[in-house]
Amino acid sequence: MNGAESLVATLVDRGVDICFANPGTSEMHFLAALENPKMRSVLCLFEGVATGAADGWYRMKDTPASTLLHLGPGLANGLANIHNAKRASSGMVNIIGEHSTSHLKYDPPLTSDIEGLARPLSHWVRRADSARAIAWDAAKAVDKASEHPGQIATLILPGDTSWREAGTTIVPPRETAARRTPDAARIEHVARVLRSGEPALIILGNKSTRGLALERAGKVAVATGARLGSQFFTARIERGAGRVPLARIPYAVAPARAFLKDFKHIITVETSEPVAFFSYPDKPSLLKEEGTLVHPLVEADEDSALAFEMLLEALGANATAPLVQPRVETAAPTGALNPVSIAHALAAALPENCIVVDESLTTGRETMGYTMGAAPHDLINNMGGSIGYATPVATGAALACPDRRVFCMVGDGSAMYTIQSLWTQARENLNVTTIIFANNSYAILKAEYANMGAGTPGERALSMIDIDRPRIDWQAMATSMGVRSVAVDTAEAFHKAMTDSVREPGPCLIEVRL
Amino acid sequence: MNGAESLVATLVDRGVDICFANPGTSEMHFLAALENPKMRSVLCLFEGVATGAADGWYRMKDTPASTLLHLGPGLANGLANIHNAKRASSGMVNIIGEHSTSHLKYDPPLTSDIEGLARPLSHWVRRADSARAIAWDAAKAVDKASEHPGQIATLILPGDTSWREAGTTIVPPRETAARRTPDAARIEHVARVLRSGEPALIILGNKSTRGLALERAGKVAVATGARLGSQFFTARIERGAGRVPLARIPYAVAPARAFLKDFKHIITVETSEPVAFFSYPDKPSLLKEEGTLVHPLVEADEDSALAFEMLLEALGANATAPLVQPRVETAAPTGALNPVSIAHALAAALPENCIVVDESLTTGRETMGYTMGAAPHDLINNMGGSIGYATPVATGAALACPDRRVFCMVGDGSAMYTIQSLWTQARENLNVTTIIFANNSYAILKAEYANMGAGTPGERALSMIDIDRPRIDWQAMATSMGVRSVAVDTAEAFHKAMTDSVREPGPCLIEVRL
Repeated sequence: MNGAESLVATLVDRGVDICFANPGTSEMHFLAALENPKMRSVLCLFEGVATGAADGWYRMKDTPASTLLHLGPGLANGLANIHNAKRASSGMVNIIGEHSTSHLKYDPPLTSDIEGLARPLSHWVRRADSARAIAWDAAKAVDKASEHPGQIATLILPGDTSWREAGTTIVPPRETAARRTPDAARIEHVARVLRSGEPALIILGNKSTRGLALERAGKVAVATGARLGSQFFTARIERGAGRVPLARIPYAVAPARAFLKDFKHIITVETSEPVAFFSYPDKPSLLKEEGTLVHPLVEADEDSALAFEMLLEALGANATAPLVQPRVETAAPTGALNPVSIAHALAAALPENCIVVDESLTTGRETMGYTMGAAPHDLINNMGGSIGYATPVATGAALACPDRRVFCMVGDGSAMYTIQSLWTQARENLNVTTIIFANNSYAILKAEYANMGAGTPGERALSMIDIDRPRIDWQAMATSMGVRSVAVDTAEAFHKAMTDSVREPGPCLIEVRL
Repeated sequence: MNGAESLVATLVDRGVDICFANPGTSEMHFLAALENPKMRSVLCLFEGVATGAADGWYRMKDTPASTLLHLGPGLANGLANIHNAKRASSGMVNIIGEHSTSHLKYDPPLTSDIEGLARPLSHWVRRADSARAIAWDAAKAVDKASEHPGQIATLILPGDTSWREAGTTIVPPRETAARRTPDAARIEHVARVLRSGEPALIILGNKSTRGLALERAGKVAVATGARLGSQFFTARIERGAGRVPLARIPYAVAPARAFLKDFKHIITVETSEPVAFFSYPDKPSLLKEEGTLVHPLVEADEDSALAFEMLLEALGANATAPLVQPRVETAAPTGALNPVSIAHALAAALPENCIVVDESLTTGRETMGYTMGAAPHDLINNMGGSIGYATPVATGAALACPDRRVFCMVGDGSAMYTIQSLWTQARENLNVTTIIFANNSYAILKAEYANMGAGTPGERALSMIDIDRPRIDWQAMATSMGVRSVAVDTAEAFHKAMTDSVREPGPCLIEVRL
């Protein structure tokens, strides 16, 4: 067994059984090792697709995927979606091919400071230094990535480490990634705050927006009158009819501050107090009212389900029935496409148990409330703000959940960053419906131009915001990568295209002409 | 005048009058400042297109372009082509938008360590700390980027620095980027080596493969019998009939060693001794024969035209006529497409003064020799080895030289990394003919798999190398971004498509079906 085979065997033994790969010459032995039948390899034509897909996989599985990237520049191409994954607390094991150690001193063209590139966006970086030790390194990488919250682990793999004999390998015992028990005094403190009857908002983040933690939060809300909310962006929310509903703090500074102003207390769960996404002249960074007190219930590495259990105990409210979102039947809309009719179409068409990946920005941003009472679904959002996350994350989520349809809602500008995802979706016949909101513009920047106090954009500035020369032909784009497509320009056609897309397995693309 | 306006005004005053931009919210004041009529703004739908285009601009102009990128992840998306530009010694000024200083402590989603991401691939990194001082910082960035060899200068622009009043600005005096005079003793030493009559190879790199330096090298060759060569990859070569011909050192280790083995001396000019691109088990990293002596004539920052003048003086060979490549008329080929017929078609079709950007890898790599006697042209190659350089570099080269046709030869796998270039080419109506060699495979990896001693690829490894499921429909891809296209499957059709492409301004794409 050579080093590469030892590495792949260790990954699968440790539970990492998928690799999103964009290989190059220095990774040929790793490719050979991918013959291991326990490892699924998924080819991506751009590295940002690979890292984004690993993020999508983690969001749905809560276990890390691996990526295979080609030296420093291959890692660089994957970094933007590693940033997004890191901000989403998604664990990931990145394997970065590298020149042999003896070759590096000659500074061949592809040489770069891989550690330097990896460190700003990794929690853990290691350079494997022998074929013998690589199993150990790989096991450590998986353990690190599997912690809660998920961590970015980056393992640099010199060529000789790959091709040399590994001999007998040793791996460390598995470090279980137990979530810490929250501090009892802190729970007591929050219970006192909630008992005070003063207006309180509990903001749920990361893994507390799902499962037991969410259900128990719903009981706390009923028992105390506290409001439940989420940040504008959350890694994944279990949402829709029958789930505990969370009020979404608005994106823009003024409505966010209006939303928050009457709360005397903000209680944070696996998240921090709300801050503005960007800074604007003469606008505050913090969104809460001055005087509002912030109380963390759960820190990022603690167990929020347990914390809510302790809180319910302290409140004596264990037997309370949780707050539940009722089903809201929405009629299929007709007529012109606009944010409201689009939201109605979504609400009517989303099938039970689907996954919605949202990067719709201006089109979808303000109207997602209309889908609160839709059939139960998971909603995934962009945590890092780097555009081009949706189509890769949808790809990874569809691989993680082959029985569920993924709806990827994405603006036309955003879709172009990592459009190569469509090819992997076609290749793997993934159940992804990509919905392109084609307004031929970086429309969000028009609003932000004004928010920034930059006045009315002039002709040259506008030409940097409008992407209508040429108009992207989205049906041709889908065809180019083997994905079926349809274009719609009415609400009823959009609704029909959504429901049609579910009937046949495999990917499709809907161009929504705005 | 605010900080952003001061920045743009300083850039154009200092001679940087084009900006390849992919803006976001934090760069709205910079967008507004782009109303400055002296600055040309070119919108790119992906950051790797922007940085690669800046590289292409520099290769043809020898002066830096600027890029505008959105925070750390925007920079990250541009890094792979910054790596390629750095290795090509292309100067570039990157402006990276950033949160306001006061906003950073709240760690909003798009926050990352921008300096950390920039440093591994920049020669100079600075964070602007006031609107007042930004003119100074910008002038320093331009001066740094304008040095010889060209440097990567990265200026981080916090939002408040952009929107605050700049007041009266001060800029440092322009530091002229004079190239250093080569050491006279070194020139004398090389003259002695060449006079010895022992077999010598002079390897020209960077800017010595053009203009006066190249012409003078051609005189040295005639006067001394030394052979003139180039590395397999060179930033830009003036090439074809009437130019001094350079023998290309082969890519693969065995033929490269065979090429070099009879030389007792290697003389390097703005480059280093040849090394293998990758490391392979049981193959050497250095390509020269043991015992061959390496003599630098010119270091990277010295003036190679001057060095050759001094060398000719020392040799008493000033009056020698240089070696000149004769015109070789190539008949338009017919029949099947293969590397030789493709090279013949290129040789017959390349119009005088065109620019060839080569990322053809397996298809074009070994047969470029057939175009040595074609009409005079410039040949640009990938210096950093990060795939996805060609379509952006062709974009920048076409903007730099609007009167010249650019032929971008690119493998299908390579083209997919930065395919968004086509859209910018359509938008700016650039004279680029993109030639896609569609073998539906990362064909180079098949050869490298064997070179690595990894045996015959199994089914799973092969599935990571073949990109034929689905086949990319290149005509649909061109259509999607507004570029006309044609597909060819014979040598005569390819030749005709090449010559047709020149007749009409604007971009087109030729799919060469292999």
